[in-house]
Amino acid sequence: MARTEDMIAVQPEKAVAAEKPKQPRQLVRFTFYKLDPQWYLLPAEMRQRGKQELIDIFTDYERSSLMRSYGLYGLRSDCDFMLWQATYAVDDLQGVSSRIRRSTMGPYIRETHAFLSMTKRSVYVGKNARGAHDPRLVITPDDKKYLFVYPFVKTRAWYALPLAERKRMMNEHIRVGLTYPSVTLNTTYSFGLDDQEFVVAFETDNISDFLDLVQELRETEASQYTLRDTPMFSCVAHPLNEILEAIGA
Amino acid sequence: MARTEDMIAVQPEKAVAAEKPKQPRQLVRFTFYKLDPQWYLLPAEMRQRGKQELIDIFTDYERSSLMRSYGLYGLRSDCDFMLWQATYAVDDLQGVSSRIRRSTMGPYIRETHAFLSMTKRSVYVGKNARGAHDPRLVITPDDKKYLFVYPFVKTRAWYALPLAERKRMMNEHIRVGLTYPSVTLNTTYSFGLDDQEFVVAFETDNISDFLDLVQELRETEASQYTLRDTPMFSCVAHPLNEILEAIGA
Amino acid sequence: MARTEDMIAVQPEKAVAAEKPKQPRQLVRFTFYKLDPQWYLLPAEMRQRGKQELIDIFTDYERSSLMRSYGLYGLRSDCDFMLWQATYAVDDLQGVSSRIRRSTMGPYIRETHAFLSMTKRSVYVGKNARGAHDPRLVITPDDKKYLFVYPFVKTRAWYALPLAERKRMMNEHIRVGLTYPSVTLNTTYSFGLDDQEFVVAFETDNISDFLDLVQELRETEASQYTLRDTPMFSCVAHPLNEILEAIGA
Amino acid sequence: MARTEDMIAVQPEKAVAAEKPKQPRQLVRFTFYKLDPQWYLLPAEMRQRGKQELIDIFTDYERSSLMRSYGLYGLRSDCDFMLWQATYAVDDLQGVSSRIRRSTMGPYIRETHAFLSMTKRSVYVGKNARGAHDPRLVITPDDKKYLFVYPFVKTRAWYALPLAERKRMMNEHIRVGLTYPSVTLNTTYSFGLDDQEFVVAFETDNISDFLDLVQELRETEASQYTLRDTPMFSCVAHPLNEILEAIGA
Amino acid sequence: MARTEDMIAVQPEKAVAAEKPKQPRQLVRFTFYKLDPQWYLLPAEMRQRGKQELIDIFTDYERSSLMRSYGLYGLRSDCDFMLWQATYAVDDLQGVSSRIRRSTMGPYIRETHAFLSMTKRSVYVGKNARGAHDPRLVITPDDKKYLFVYPFVKTRAWYALPLAERKRMMNEHIRVGLTYPSVTLNTTYSFGLDDQEFVVAFETDNISDFLDLVQELRETEASQYTLRDTPMFSCVAHPLNEILEAIGA
Repeated sequence: MARTEDMIAVQPEKAVAAEKPKQPRQLVRFTFYKLDPQWYLLPAEMRQRGKQELIDIFTDYERSSLMRSYGLYGLRSDCDFMLWQATYAVDDLQGVSSRIRRSTMGPYIRETHAFLSMTKRSVYVGKNARGAHDPRLVITPDDKKYLFVYPFVKTRAWYALPLAERKRMMNEHIRVGLTYPSVTLNTTYSFGLDDQEFVVAFETDNISDFLDLVQELRETEASQYTLRDTPMFSCVAHPLNEILEAIGA
Repeated sequence: MARTEDMIAVQPEKAVAAEKPKQPRQLVRFTFYKLDPQWYLLPAEMRQRGKQELIDIFTDYERSSLMRSYGLYGLRSDCDFMLWQATYAVDDLQGVSSRIRRSTMGPYIRETHAFLSMTKRSVYVGKNARGAHDPRLVITPDDKKYLFVYPFVKTRAWYALPLAERKRMMNEHIRVGLTYPSVTLNTTYSFGLDDQEFVVAFETDNISDFLDLVQELRETEASQYTLRDTPMFSCVAHPLNEILEAIGA
Repeated sequence: MARTEDMIAVQPEKAVAAEKPKQPRQLVRFTFYKLDPQWYLLPAEMRQRGKQELIDIFTDYERSSLMRSYGLYGLRSDCDFMLWQATYAVDDLQGVSSRIRRSTMGPYIRETHAFLSMTKRSVYVGKNARGAHDPRLVITPDDKKYLFVYPFVKTRAWYALPLAERKRMMNEHIRVGLTYPSVTLNTTYSFGLDDQEFVVAFETDNISDFLDLVQELRETEASQYTLRDTPMFSCVAHPLNEILEAIGA
Repeated sequence: MARTEDMIAVQPEKAVAAEKPKQPRQLVRFTFYKLDPQWYLLPAEMRQRGKQELIDIFTDYERSSLMRSYGLYGLRSDCDFMLWQATYAVDDLQGVSSRIRRSTMGPYIRETHAFLSMTKRSVYVGKNARGAHDPRLVITPDDKKYLFVYPFVKTRAWYALPLAERKRMMNEHIRVGLTYPSVTLNTTYSFGLDDQEFVVAFETDNISDFLDLVQELRETEASQYTLRDTPMFSCVAHPLNEILEAIGA
Repeated sequence: MARTEDMIAVQPEKAVAAEKPKQPRQLVRFTFYKLDPQWYLLPAEMRQRGKQELIDIFTDYERSSLMRSYGLYGLRSDCDFMLWQATYAVDDLQGVSSRIRRSTMGPYIRETHAFLSMTKRSVYVGKNARGAHDPRLVITPDDKKYLFVYPFVKTRAWYALPLAERKRMMNEHIRVGLTYPSVTLNTTYSFGLDDQEFVVAFETDNISDFLDLVQELRETEASQYTLRDTPMFSCVAHPLNEILEAIGA
């Protein structure tokens, strides 16, 4: 913060951050959509055109972004489907939104939830563990059947603990996770960008394994420092055209 | 969690979970619906068709799922009726939603609340107590007149207690419950799947017994560890066609 | 709870509750309504018919239920009027709702709040104080000019106190109440039935007496154990036809 | 509380409240309105008539009530203007609401917030300080340019403090207030009538003085006992006709 | 507070505030807008006129106010764009709102969030550090690509700390900020004017620097005293006409 209101009072101790990682980090957005019931009352031809336009937008952005689609109808009431996008350019995020809004379906589709985040190296794992290219900075889905997504906020008491304490607790957390090899975790960071601190996204082919893992994690010491971990979204991988068909769009 | 961001830091101590129960567990959904007032302004013939389609969907899914219907009109303002579904296939949950949405009533019916959960063996009861087939993994309603449903979240302090402590408290809780033999409890698990940890569903023919039980449970030690137990839904068992008639659908 | 998931683990200590009171208890509902502005745009003749139907429903249910009407327009923004119903049959509660919904006004009237409860003997007063017929189990309004209604939830810490402690605090609470003889209290119970534990309803002809009483009660020891006591509804007794006239229905 | 459910258990110690003040107290309502966008689409003639009716209602009630109007457009998103009314008769509050609702603008104007309260003598100031007529019981605005209004709830811990402790803290609070002579405070009481305990209304011609006062009050000891003091409304005194013109009604 | 209800009880100790700064302070508003989907269904000619009117209002007020526009589509679901205005006259804030509401787009554009605040000198920096003209009292954006805005409320415990303690913690906070020279902070004050205490607005060309800064600040001691810092808005600088084009207005 160069020109803070208070910057005169102190001398800069380390004005450069030369050791920051140079590898680019991705912007990530989980956007949950719900169709306005008015859509269903429109002529079939217009709805067919609208669906095709939405699929075309999705396909176009697959070239520059990672794009995935998930259905939530029948599992969560406040949304019908979710698009998961990861990209290096904020223009890609704004572009998808702009194109959808200007499409035939635009006036009838609502973003009921959305989580904005970025990839980042974890402070709890030594950077020696990775080479020059850190795979944690690139979203690479396992493309399993289920994705479970929720925003995550830790208590401020957590951040007041010594780093070694936090590392010890995270290690316990990780050990529990490793006993569920069928579940994969992607963690991205939202500090300052959105209302949560992290977005966690678990992939698995086995719902009950995931449920059992989350219940078991409640008993870890780190879990005592959770401030918020809702809303929780159970998502099922489906091609976008099948989702639109299933919700009768 | 196989590919966690932090998995390199530690060695897997028990990478397999061979002792996990093999008996399949059910997915459960409590879905609360409210009719949009616009429905009442549609032609009688269209409404009659819409009602019949909804009843047909319900009947069709009774073949593959457990399906029950309850009326909440006159008892709770934010919903008209509830469908309780239990099944082994997520497709059954998504299928009901998909079929309803594509039906005549689809654009006019809202899911105002929904709770997604799974059956699971309790950690507070020894597994020797059951045979190879554990009835707790299959939803079998008693089909009493009333069903009381609410989501349930415990404080994180609960999970930090030793298991023996928690078992002792649950035993006290159970002893109180046993003094109300007219009330039956179904507990299902939502960890990671939805915003609550548990969904509790009590069946009884006697409302005041249930009220007295819940009040008495407030004095148990376990009750001190309740973080959230609302919203609470008082549901009355009614055939779906009678509910639709009563709400003038 | 006969068939709880955990019932095998313990032996029933007292499986019957033979000492439970035999006198029937009433179901009580406070339902707050708001008219949709669209109603005002309908033809006068249709609105006249709708108003008369609503009054007829109210009158019909006065035979089997206690029914009272109160206006809240000009006092609280989220509702226009409230109906207070007490009955021995859940069918009476559902019947009023069903009849209103199927009436002309049905698609245009919203239940913006509702509290469901039952009458019950207080645990803080010895049952010897009453004869075989306990008047606390029957709602009998004083029919004063004002009714003040709010839902009430105590902290879990309250329920962990010894009964004698709670009785001592309730006695202090009662002593304060007795210094305001112009204010009458009806307490009903909602444990497990609705989102609150109690619904309190104060009747008086003198608003400022009630306000002073509530402020004075803040200083009692019991008040420290209040978790929630909002929303608070100031209601004025009016015949239903006069309310409908006043709100221009 | 004459007929409380528990009144038999104790003897009335002081059943009369003869020392209560005889001077009548005023009912006060701060009502915040927002125009539905549909209003703007109506014919100009109808809108002109609607505006004039609203002004006439305001003028008529100025005879029996204190009435003031404030604009909030451009300062707060959830309302366009506020009417401040003080009267001895609940009929005046209900009358304004009834007349507005039945007017042309009625179906298009929303009460988005409202605070109901009464005037009352402070317990922190000796009653000897005033003569037979206590000006605190009558609302008399200073009619300055700005009015800042918010609801106020203290923690229950405050009410558990000895009165002398609270008086000491209130004196510190008052001393800070007196260093801002350009700011005037009206406090009214809502215990039991509405969701807050107090409604505070500050008048000033100088916004920054008010902001500085509120910031400085954060450091008083009494401030530690604030549970809620939002939403906060910045209001600018304008004649009602000018407000309606400005919002394009 | 000249005429407080309690002012008689104490003597004014310092009735004047002669040392208050004379340099005028600015009023600041961050207003977040969302277009109603109905807008998209209007004739193209009308929409073109509406867009031009909005741009004209923006341009007109650039003469008397600082005005900036930011797009949030594709980043946050509850708004499309934000206007940042700073001015010495409350009339400028109300004027923009009045003009927009009376324009063609008025009935179709919603203010979904807005934060009202003022510039003010920090109590944590000695005033000797500045000359007669304090730049902190005038908003001067750096006009970087990104602006991150959120409301901020500290716990009351913070205000109970000695000023020296708070200064020490703020200095640590500032030292962290200085290690991120690419990020600039504007803090404005909302005490009593709006629901937050501060509005913080960070400018940067580098999103990940900002994210890293906010995460690092979590570990400062001052961070333990944060009560609320959401909702958080990620804004991208765009000319207003380009934003309107992008959202298909």
